[in-house]
Amino acid sequence: MKRKVIIIGAGFGGLTAARALSSANVDVTIVDRTNHHLFQPLLYQVATAGLSAPEIASPIRAVLAGQKNARVVLGEVARVDVAAKKVYLTADDEGEREALSYDWLVAAAGAKASYFGHDEWEKYAPGLKSLDDAVELRTRILLAFESAERTTDLAERERLLTFAIIGGGPTGVELAGAIRELARYVLAEDFRNIRVDETRVVLVEAGSRILTMFTPELARKAVEQLQELGVEVRCDAKVVDIDASGVTLDGNEKIGARTVIWAAGVRATRLATELANGVGQETDRQGRVRVGVDCSLPGHPEIFAIGDMAFFEQDGKPLPGVSPVAMQQARYVAKLIEFEESPGSSDRKPFKYFDKGSMATIGRSRAVAAANGLELSGFLAWLGWLFVHIYYLIGFQNRVVVMFNWAWSYFSYKRGARVIRPRSVRRREGTGDAPPASGIPTSGRGGSAVTP
Amino acid sequence: MKRKVIIIGAGFGGLTAARALSSANVDVTIVDRTNHHLFQPLLYQVATAGLSAPEIASPIRAVLAGQKNARVVLGEVARVDVAAKKVYLTADDEGEREALSYDWLVAAAGAKASYFGHDEWEKYAPGLKSLDDAVELRTRILLAFESAERTTDLAERERLLTFAIIGGGPTGVELAGAIRELARYVLAEDFRNIRVDETRVVLVEAGSRILTMFTPELARKAVEQLQELGVEVRCDAKVVDIDASGVTLDGNEKIGARTVIWAAGVRATRLATELANGVGQETDRQGRVRVGVDCSLPGHPEIFAIGDMAFFEQDGKPLPGVSPVAMQQARYVAKLIEFEESPGSSDRKPFKYFDKGSMATIGRSRAVAAANGLELSGFLAWLGWLFVHIYYLIGFQNRVVVMFNWAWSYFSYKRGARVIRPRSVRRREGTGDAPPASGIPTSGRGGSAVTP
Repeated sequence: MKRKVIIIGAGFGGLTAARALSSANVDVTIVDRTNHHLFQPLLYQVATAGLSAPEIASPIRAVLAGQKNARVVLGEVARVDVAAKKVYLTADDEGEREALSYDWLVAAAGAKASYFGHDEWEKYAPGLKSLDDAVELRTRILLAFESAERTTDLAERERLLTFAIIGGGPTGVELAGAIRELARYVLAEDFRNIRVDETRVVLVEAGSRILTMFTPELARKAVEQLQELGVEVRCDAKVVDIDASGVTLDGNEKIGARTVIWAAGVRATRLATELANGVGQETDRQGRVRVGVDCSLPGHPEIFAIGDMAFFEQDGKPLPGVSPVAMQQARYVAKLIEFEESPGSSDRKPFKYFDKGSMATIGRSRAVAAANGLELSGFLAWLGWLFVHIYYLIGFQNRVVVMFNWAWSYFSYKRGARVIRPRSVRRREGTGDAPPASGIPTSGRGGSAVTP
Repeated sequence: MKRKVIIIGAGFGGLTAARALSSANVDVTIVDRTNHHLFQPLLYQVATAGLSAPEIASPIRAVLAGQKNARVVLGEVARVDVAAKKVYLTADDEGEREALSYDWLVAAAGAKASYFGHDEWEKYAPGLKSLDDAVELRTRILLAFESAERTTDLAERERLLTFAIIGGGPTGVELAGAIRELARYVLAEDFRNIRVDETRVVLVEAGSRILTMFTPELARKAVEQLQELGVEVRCDAKVVDIDASGVTLDGNEKIGARTVIWAAGVRATRLATELANGVGQETDRQGRVRVGVDCSLPGHPEIFAIGDMAFFEQDGKPLPGVSPVAMQQARYVAKLIEFEESPGSSDRKPFKYFDKGSMATIGRSRAVAAANGLELSGFLAWLGWLFVHIYYLIGFQNRVVVMFNWAWSYFSYKRGARVIRPRSVRRREGTGDAPPASGIPTSGRGGSAVTP
């Protein structure tokens, strides 16, 4: 009987850990709430109709199909019993629970949007962490333009054509640029009543500048590129309220906007709190569980937490919540497990994060990138960004389709995934009129069910 | 002031009519509840994870962007006042109404699934008419396999791996073949606990044979191809009940199935009833409005109904609800409007449907096709089907991406769009733990909103 590794979460951290364990003499079980690994860096493309949802999602089962020692469980973790070394799942609809035993546990459940105690803002300003979020945002953005085209109320039209994005990190910057381009290149010719220059995109940042992971100089270049696109960048602007009519800033300034997007703060998922409590600790202020230099929980060398849900201090600072951290930690942890599973294991060397650099795209041919002391902005940075994102996208089919879609959008200025799927509308219609009781002849593409 | 044409519905009929009016001296307004034209013949591909939703949907605005005399309104028709020649829309969420005046009205609102008086079956056996339907079905099908992989209850596993499709028309046949192939080629290697031959796909038809638009000989070949794939074809099987545990047939036979799909009957949308009542008529048993030989409503030469919502008799039989009928009627009506808008119009020549043939695909290299007395089955029929469907798919970008995806699936036996998007799961999680009140430092990809 091989010893068991349970990995919770199939994001960048969890999936990397599973793959890195392929030659280890263990049984690997990876648990996720969805059936797909999501390429989060391109979520903003789904939200702005550049890509379709499946293009940035790979079925976890398909990714691990060839890996004999791995199995995949679609499920949600209800709780972890660290004393008994068991993970309890919420099973299907019936609410019953299923327990999986582990010898090693790798927690990589990531983070979600955090509203800093203002959960009531969520419904007005959704975040962007899942495919559902992205499709919901796409619907809101496209519907705002549709409503603006129809309305005759000028003040309402202004609100409909104003998009406020809260948070000047890479996600906020990418969204701001992409929405502005959507309006400028794609929608301009399709609408009869609205003009492009009526569209207002405001990027709201509470700090003194955007993109704090870059140098002030490079961040300034990003601001210039955003402004060239027509995005308003508002720094030192603290959000004090968000409602259906828009955003209120400190100082009582109001930005009237029907579409508000939250790209400001994240918080570790509930599992981090669960684990911290399990080992008698508290989480940090972002809900992350504190781990030691070997990524394990205090007093529990068999439990690791990696990625966005882990608080790992290096050189006196916590590591940022970005995918390279999660992936490097995953490989470190996998190697450690493989090593300690063979006889004669020794001391653990501390994990060390190697920062390869950062990049953020702003739009067509616009980006900023920094790596090894080298700083790029504009077209070259954008090419680098493109290359890295295609390269890391999982699945050959997705790579080719995404590449084609991007090439197509680049040369045609069009976007393919402009689909509004209005559930509410569909539900409202229902099946109003009562159909006859029986005896309807077969017709069209349908067959017949109760015909004579 | 040009005279106004309102087209209701942007399906095959409505969109064809709008385009055919591009050089007519009229103002065209096309109204649809969604923002996209849907390529319905490929919906089953979205339902079985072969294509993503946006790949078979083209934004109506984009399709008509270059057509100067056309505008697009996203909206739902509340009612039509045939006396005042006005169409009332349900406006946005507020429930207020907007009226559009017309000189010509082309009603092309299509059909939806009909449960023959058993609307309670809908929730157990969804139909396949919209993108939402397709994504819902995809989720159900993929989740059934996921649950089967996890369950230890053998009877439940059998129900989970049984798929019942009601209705032996082209849609039912396509779905049956596609689900069986999904199990056989795609999922087989990805799951550890379930075997392909455990998957049961039952095609249930109330009539004495499937695919009644083909000759008995060709339909028999279709049955053979379905059986080669492993689909059970049940003719003369009348459905008397559907519930969460499966389908009950006449004679009290029970097919235990967690996934039941309705491909049996359709019924015209509510607008047909509305129009019929407006002109003092009744609909036929499928809810269609009866039109004259010129596709217009009795006593209202300015109102046309085309496609699935119209009852048009030719050679003593109603025309079938297929896209070529809708498109030919659309071109006929457009020509008629253009002609009568110019001075000196004369008598209307009756519309005549020209049947170019039918085709239905069964799976990889399997199909049946009939045209001009020629009958094909197998690989050649499948090639023909492929060609016709790529050819008619609207939008160059979609054509290339769909072609690539098909080629990819054909050679790799994989499917790209296997995404389960479990809204319920996401909602259940919510934002359980209360985040701290303020002062959270910026981290990761998010910016900051209320930092100090």
